[in-house]
Amino acid sequence: MNALSPQSYKGTRDYYPEDKRVQNYIFSVWHKVAMRYGYEEYGAPTLEPLDVYTAKSGQELAGEQTYSFTDRGGRIVAIRPEMTPTISRMVAARRQELAYPARLYSIANFMRYERPQRGREREFWQLNVDIFGSDGVLAEAEILTMADDIMREFGAKDTDYIIRINNRKLINFMMAQYFMLDGVKSQALIKLFDRKNKISDQEFEDQAREIFADNAEEGLQKIKRLLGAKNMADLPEEIKNSSVVNEVQELFTLLERAGIKSQVFDITLMRGLDYYTGMVFEVFDTHPDNARALFGGGRYDGLVGLFGAEQISAVGMAPGGTMMENFLSVHNLTPKSVSTTNAYIAVLGDYQKEANDLATKLRASGLNVEVDINSDKLDKQIKNAVKKQIRFVVFVGDNEVKSGVYNIKNLETTEEQQMNASELVDFLKENK
Amino acid sequence: MNALSPQSYKGTRDYYPEDKRVQNYIFSVWHKVAMRYGYEEYGAPTLEPLDVYTAKSGQELAGEQTYSFTDRGGRIVAIRPEMTPTISRMVAARRQELAYPARLYSIANFMRYERPQRGREREFWQLNVDIFGSDGVLAEAEILTMADDIMREFGAKDTDYIIRINNRKLINFMMAQYFMLDGVKSQALIKLFDRKNKISDQEFEDQAREIFADNAEEGLQKIKRLLGAKNMADLPEEIKNSSVVNEVQELFTLLERAGIKSQVFDITLMRGLDYYTGMVFEVFDTHPDNARALFGGGRYDGLVGLFGAEQISAVGMAPGGTMMENFLSVHNLTPKSVSTTNAYIAVLGDYQKEANDLATKLRASGLNVEVDINSDKLDKQIKNAVKKQIRFVVFVGDNEVKSGVYNIKNLETTEEQQMNASELVDFLKENK
Repeated sequence: MNALSPQSYKGTRDYYPEDKRVQNYIFSVWHKVAMRYGYEEYGAPTLEPLDVYTAKSGQELAGEQTYSFTDRGGRIVAIRPEMTPTISRMVAARRQELAYPARLYSIANFMRYERPQRGREREFWQLNVDIFGSDGVLAEAEILTMADDIMREFGAKDTDYIIRINNRKLINFMMAQYFMLDGVKSQALIKLFDRKNKISDQEFEDQAREIFADNAEEGLQKIKRLLGAKNMADLPEEIKNSSVVNEVQELFTLLERAGIKSQVFDITLMRGLDYYTGMVFEVFDTHPDNARALFGGGRYDGLVGLFGAEQISAVGMAPGGTMMENFLSVHNLTPKSVSTTNAYIAVLGDYQKEANDLATKLRASGLNVEVDINSDKLDKQIKNAVKKQIRFVVFVGDNEVKSGVYNIKNLETTEEQQMNASELVDFLKENK
Repeated sequence: MNALSPQSYKGTRDYYPEDKRVQNYIFSVWHKVAMRYGYEEYGAPTLEPLDVYTAKSGQELAGEQTYSFTDRGGRIVAIRPEMTPTISRMVAARRQELAYPARLYSIANFMRYERPQRGREREFWQLNVDIFGSDGVLAEAEILTMADDIMREFGAKDTDYIIRINNRKLINFMMAQYFMLDGVKSQALIKLFDRKNKISDQEFEDQAREIFADNAEEGLQKIKRLLGAKNMADLPEEIKNSSVVNEVQELFTLLERAGIKSQVFDITLMRGLDYYTGMVFEVFDTHPDNARALFGGGRYDGLVGLFGAEQISAVGMAPGGTMMENFLSVHNLTPKSVSTTNAYIAVLGDYQKEANDLATKLRASGLNVEVDINSDKLDKQIKNAVKKQIRFVVFVGDNEVKSGVYNIKNLETTEEQQMNASELVDFLKENK
């Protein structure tokens, strides 16, 4: 038989301990901020019936990017490409029992069949934070406040990121009343704005011309005027007439009151997915090496209703792990990598039993301890501890067993100290 | 359009917050014990090429129970039904860089297309603990000690479970030297022993007769003698002649020295998977309502080598979440369900801003706080907090805003107290 490939499946990633530590740090910040606002964790299946996505997620995601297949029982299923339809289904299933607003979060993996590139993998991890059963801007402000809090908790400064905010109702109003487009052309222009940062200016103009057809010049002028607007006051009068403007202004007032400084209104922000119905937002990295959307979210009031339940309003967001990892990296915010193991016990000579006994004692005190069991040479044992990024090595040999006094070495400073077993416990607990 | 079904995909489970809390408790014990012994967490892809499983996992698992399909690029892949092949692949990929013994663990989900039943779901969660690059019984003793420690950490008594231990080399010796069977018949008898607890005594006898064919009576006598052996001393002399017996005895000496009391030797324990090469074990629940194998593991020295690397020895185990949940349930060991949210702020009247400000203050002190944003009636707000299993409600209304003294209610005892904001912080932190 030929050897099997040791490589991971295309677009997926093996997280060795040093990689997993970074991921765990990101997860820990997500958990902390979500719980801080009273959100409770849930878990969900990896597979869903494919039609859960075809209903509202948009053709690209459901039709071209899902890992879908027919199971052994003839059901057409997909590995979840996102969480929003799943959590909407779960809320629909318990709509009578849940307490509203229901504040829910999860940290889970997803798969999309896309071309792998920087910040985009076929399997990726996301935090999903959603609030169900709250109609007003207070719910939207809460989600945006949490988005900002996540960035701050990672150590980011206000100027390291920008939160672009828009509203789907305002977009729809603009398409009909300002651009004077019908439904089909509106959708096309929305998708075009969505791709704006991924294509050249010339491509954007060409495609816009196609959409406006006979009214191309006028349409392009209107787009130009729009792109020049730096805040709500700059907007063309035809858009400012919308009643949604008040709602947007109210939201910005709440954000200012919450002490948030990175928010801007951006009429050209669309968000690709079909299910958004109100506020939409995206958090952008301002670092020139990583100038891209980190994550986003918005209001999607129609999704729970698809599962045979009455409508239940919803606002949510979904920060991704890889994007966050890149953000931390370019801003020098990734924490130093240290093992979760507090000490490595090196065995010198025939003292395995004594080493094991010491390990048992340290573990009983709440310490994480690895003990050598391979009778390797001392320098190899120390090298192992260094490779594993463990800070302290405790030696168990002739001297230690006879005297009950252990030699302990700090591998970062190379400093050595001697102490008995109970001093060792105290020292290692203090230096966790 | 017809409504979509709100049910989860067959054999999978929605974990609402109260279910997720139990799972998180199980995960926390797993993390704690794994790290205690110096194991470090890794993560791995959900998909693997199917041939990773066909190579060594056995026909039933790879051929009949995988969720396998062809991806959009023509690759035949499977949702992982177990972790052992994946972590073996990962070790093979970094065989030069890793420090040995490599102690690795993960907590991850898996899928198998089986008939769902009590304690068995099509999607399930497992801890995987593995040690690579250590040949001796010390590594086996460490894994078994951790298995025992997990049970104790969950609050189980020695008598609540039993650890059955055997050795594949001894099994192979027995098949050839005691039962005098060739390779094919040996495999058949191993599989039959493996199913023993799932079929009737009569079925077992019938199938054994088939395997022994002309020597059926003698074969059945030998099986009977074997099943009567309660410890190693009782074993037939032909088996005791094996050199593996010393190895097994050494392992039991180490376990006794580690203070473990639930271990027994069981010559009839086989473990279904093809990749085991030495020690194998299973932990059984002794409770009459749940008398079944909770989890198991063993030595599998040949798997890393399949990925084109030199052989690297390995011992591991994989406790499952659902089995553990049932164990905790029948032994009354499931912890009381309490929200991760420390307080619910109820808003009385037009004081949303003041309520939000108090929430911000409490959150800044490290507390998890949910605040009402729906202007619901007070009794509805309190009902929400009760449903969500939050312990304390803090009221923000006329009196509180005027006086700066808040009313706080313990929903378990119905006791109410008054305190100012900084007293509130201290009180809630003490009562986390």
